[in-house]
Amino acid sequence: MTAAFELDARLATDTHLVGELELSRVLLMNDARFPWLILVPRRAGMRDLIDLARAEQHVLLDEIGRCSAALRNMDKPDKLNIAALGNVVAQLHVHVIARNLHDAAWPRPVWGVGEREAYAAGALELRLSSLRAALRTQ
Amino acid sequence: MTAAFELDARLATDTHLVGELELSRVLLMNDARFPWLILVPRRAGMRDLIDLARAEQHVLLDEIGRCSAALRNMDKPDKLNIAALGNVVAQLHVHVIARNLHDAAWPRPVWGVGEREAYAAGALELRLSSLRAALRTQ
Repeated sequence: MTAAFELDARLATDTHLVGELELSRVLLMNDARFPWLILVPRRAGMRDLIDLARAEQHVLLDEIGRCSAALRNMDKPDKLNIAALGNVVAQLHVHVIARNLHDAAWPRPVWGVGEREAYAAGALELRLSSLRAALRTQ
Repeated sequence: MTAAFELDARLATDTHLVGELELSRVLLMNDARFPWLILVPRRAGMRDLIDLARAEQHVLLDEIGRCSAALRNMDKPDKLNIAALGNVVAQLHVHVIARNLHDAAWPRPVWGVGEREAYAAGALELRLSSLRAALRTQ
């Protein structure tokens, strides 16, 4: 019997649920400064990308691609940042972040830069519904 | 006719050549503080992961996995950091970095932290030959 997947408490606190893809839960970071998605494969006990079975790594890659394409279409970023770091939150998760030349951290990575700005309620609902439509999440 | 691949000048300056995999050139960041590889797919004009053809994204993922496994075996890290950022160097490249709880940047990401420490000549040759053997690069 394998342990059940449970979302890390810090990831749950910092994000809003977008929905589920085949392998991953898709979260929206609650920081209106950056269009910023986080994918969390629903597998217990995973820390590094190579901890996933190889076939699931490939599913995850395709889900990263879907999130990348959705952000590129919605936000027309200058660059996408893709990263699996996990130094603070150990549970395997992948950041997909749309960056632009005038954003609050450019050209630095976004982590640890300044203070997060929570989405206003209306903007949040609009973004979540746009993402759900673009990603066709469950 | 497609443009020929040419390694970005800044990546060339900051790294040492490990060798070639099927798709990617493998580089060692010249910073002895972190075991830090960079994969550069030998395709001209690529910036984001999703700019690569889907089949090549999957080849790249497997090469990331090979580099991850090599660093895990050699350095027994606490965590691997995988990232495709490219805010400074636009050419598509992927960082594979072995992190540990006592390294110079933990738990922050490594980019922009402190000053790089170049490898001493002997340590560099040892590391490059170990990496070439582990990765079976050409």
